[in-house]
Amino acid sequence: MEEIEIEELREQLLTAIQKRDRQKVIEIFDTVPNIDIAEAIEDVDDVKALLYIFKVVDNEYAAEFFAELSSDQQELIINAFSDKELVELINESYADDITDAIQQLPANIVNRVLKVCPKEMRNDVNKLLNYKEDTAGSVMTTEYIEMKEDTSVKDAIKIIREKGRDAETVYTIFVRDTKRTLTGTVDLDDLIFAKEDEILSDIMNRDFVSCNVNNDQEDVAKMFKRYDLTAMAVTNDENKIVGIITIDDVVDIIEEEVTEDIARMAAISDMSDPYLKTPVYKLVLKCVPWIIALMVLQVFSTLILSGFEAEIGKFAILAVFTPLIMDAGGNSGGQTTTMIVRSLSLDEFDKKDYWKVAWKELRVAAVIGGIVSLFAFGWLMFEMSVGIVDTKSISDVTPLVVKGELLIAALVAGTLFVTMIISRMVGCSLPFLAKLIKLDPAVVCGPFTTTIVDIVSLITYFLIWTQLINPAFFGL
Amino acid sequence: MEEIEIEELREQLLTAIQKRDRQKVIEIFDTVPNIDIAEAIEDVDDVKALLYIFKVVDNEYAAEFFAELSSDQQELIINAFSDKELVELINESYADDITDAIQQLPANIVNRVLKVCPKEMRNDVNKLLNYKEDTAGSVMTTEYIEMKEDTSVKDAIKIIREKGRDAETVYTIFVRDTKRTLTGTVDLDDLIFAKEDEILSDIMNRDFVSCNVNNDQEDVAKMFKRYDLTAMAVTNDENKIVGIITIDDVVDIIEEEVTEDIARMAAISDMSDPYLKTPVYKLVLKCVPWIIALMVLQVFSTLILSGFEAEIGKFAILAVFTPLIMDAGGNSGGQTTTMIVRSLSLDEFDKKDYWKVAWKELRVAAVIGGIVSLFAFGWLMFEMSVGIVDTKSISDVTPLVVKGELLIAALVAGTLFVTMIISRMVGCSLPFLAKLIKLDPAVVCGPFTTTIVDIVSLITYFLIWTQLINPAFFGL
Repeated sequence: MEEIEIEELREQLLTAIQKRDRQKVIEIFDTVPNIDIAEAIEDVDDVKALLYIFKVVDNEYAAEFFAELSSDQQELIINAFSDKELVELINESYADDITDAIQQLPANIVNRVLKVCPKEMRNDVNKLLNYKEDTAGSVMTTEYIEMKEDTSVKDAIKIIREKGRDAETVYTIFVRDTKRTLTGTVDLDDLIFAKEDEILSDIMNRDFVSCNVNNDQEDVAKMFKRYDLTAMAVTNDENKIVGIITIDDVVDIIEEEVTEDIARMAAISDMSDPYLKTPVYKLVLKCVPWIIALMVLQVFSTLILSGFEAEIGKFAILAVFTPLIMDAGGNSGGQTTTMIVRSLSLDEFDKKDYWKVAWKELRVAAVIGGIVSLFAFGWLMFEMSVGIVDTKSISDVTPLVVKGELLIAALVAGTLFVTMIISRMVGCSLPFLAKLIKLDPAVVCGPFTTTIVDIVSLITYFLIWTQLINPAFFGL
Repeated sequence: MEEIEIEELREQLLTAIQKRDRQKVIEIFDTVPNIDIAEAIEDVDDVKALLYIFKVVDNEYAAEFFAELSSDQQELIINAFSDKELVELINESYADDITDAIQQLPANIVNRVLKVCPKEMRNDVNKLLNYKEDTAGSVMTTEYIEMKEDTSVKDAIKIIREKGRDAETVYTIFVRDTKRTLTGTVDLDDLIFAKEDEILSDIMNRDFVSCNVNNDQEDVAKMFKRYDLTAMAVTNDENKIVGIITIDDVVDIIEEEVTEDIARMAAISDMSDPYLKTPVYKLVLKCVPWIIALMVLQVFSTLILSGFEAEIGKFAILAVFTPLIMDAGGNSGGQTTTMIVRSLSLDEFDKKDYWKVAWKELRVAAVIGGIVSLFAFGWLMFEMSVGIVDTKSISDVTPLVVKGELLIAALVAGTLFVTMIISRMVGCSLPFLAKLIKLDPAVVCGPFTTTIVDIVSLITYFLIWTQLINPAFFGL
């Protein structure tokens, strides 16, 4: 929805509430998705207005709408609700939505919610609260439909009609044998297509996949993608079903994991909280340790540059091109690690493919090294000839057989060739190494690649100068 | 599935095929997901073995399995199939799967497929082939169930039983009025829960959302997330339904869009092809233009450094810390742009929030600037006192009231303070600016931020030195 429509919706709804226009409020809830309504009134903290909505709107709608509100608004409403109203709301909600809401609410509110919760729901919520973060258990819901293998299609449809309203999905029915072990799944459409007297074990999919409560949510998301699932059973260690995960949760998981990867690549500790809601001190804490750590890692390049201070004092032009070389190496290494890390996280290849990747990178690096150093040679000659770079420090020193500009351009070009090769080889190897020692490839890639490439390229630069060019042409 | 299991599966299946063990092959297809089987035999190019599978396995399974095979294998099979077999396969497939397959196959094969295609399917495929890449039209499928508003629940279920097998999903039924305009959707579970004599307009959701064929696929994915959809109607400009998009396609879209964003942040033109299948020359083309462009952008820092060559010649120690300052600025700017770009792409905030963000960034930057410059002061004093940095070029020049080391440390610390502020302000502003002029924020952020920050921090560094410190303490 466009901003302007949201604004209009806000006007309409608030006017309707003010006029106590029951029909209009109901009509809005009938024709506009809940999340748009929630966004339209996200800054409304008039508890009477909010309560009016809950009074007028159907219980089922109300629970969905409640889940979309901000935690401040949720708190207002829970405080204003009688126990009876609260129980009604909870009964219409899913256990995973309540669990999500509870994790954002202050302790006294949580206590009240859990106290009035019907016993079964309380058990479900407590169970969900206890799973480790980012596991299948922590994202699953406990409201699903499970049936025995010998249930007839006719009975199955009857059960769905009776109990389906409470389940998060009725599109996948989970089938168990007499030992309560999960043995298959039946899609709702297969039930519709089947004959009434068939039994579930005749029509169920036996090639289903499921996951364990302790599986990482990232792996769960990958299974959904690989197998094009809409719902998956979560089982305990005895292969008994304890919950299900549905595709709408998976979309959120994918977003979360991607955000995590992107944060790590940019050297930020964590970006899982929405930016506008993160206080200043937290943003500082997420960023500053990395800035400082990377600064400390610079000790190596500082050491090398300082080692050649005498040379820089004589030929100041040498200092002009060190940032160019370091940046080119950093950019090139960054390109490689980004490609490799992304491919690893999409499971495009695995550890065993390292040599294939390294061989390909070596060829790519050689070509890029050739192109970049040729270009740099021409570009530097241009910069020096039009006076962008002051060449006095070199042309003043000695009358030469070849011009000093040519030597500097050749020095930078040669260094860049080595830098391009090293940066791509280091950049493609570190993510595999991280994977081998079970670190997240996204964390190590950027900073470490840059540091190693910086060191190698600076050393190359000054070695070419002090060992080859200087003695041959200047004899200093 | 683990690699070892895939290996085992491959053994089993190939042995079964060799022995012409019909039962075993069918059992494998019954109990193992198609994509795992396809992966297990991904390098099998024995056309007889592949054909045996298609002879033995159920038509419906066969079409799904076909869609998972590599294009080389698909080509082998199509070539070996008689026209009749090909028609059977096509009839069991979905139009969007055929369209996907066709886009990878050589022209002569495509012609044969389209020639034997039943007319209706050919029209669908041609239509899908004609939509612009990355639009809703290009990812939708044309096999959906549409019913009139006055259809009874009983008739609706009957229609699903008859036609549902050909539709990509029966979980969402699309409802139209007499003018063929889309007016609502009915979820399959609502049909199951409803009374037989109700009509669709009684039970349909009127608060559904739909998209236009020309909408960007990224916006489509956002709608799926926002509204927790599993299927959405795609309409033409007259609001008549022309296709649907289902959630499994959306998961792929999200992956694709994220890969695009990540590529742009790392200055790579495009990472949409799988790495291992991209030839060397293409990888070069994706990376090298950016490396060169960024090198050309370095002209500004080169210019500044060169302008201070005389100063560097006198105080070589000044050159030692320029990379440190430039890197710290680059890292800090990168952190900010990454956060802002990600938040913008998750729609956490919009253009109108710029001032809120800028004010927050200013405070964050001030704190980070304070911490980083204090740390840098201490760290540089340490580096210089233990001899990591050679301070001869400064301590030799003049006997001082204050020690030269203190001045250098203060210079770097002061520059870093300014750099941290500038880098975060530029880093948070550029993505908004990009959005304002309708560019992708991910493209501009990295390189431009770094370039601007480099310029400002180098100028600050040398200005502090030449205007404040040098005249006050060295008088040179």
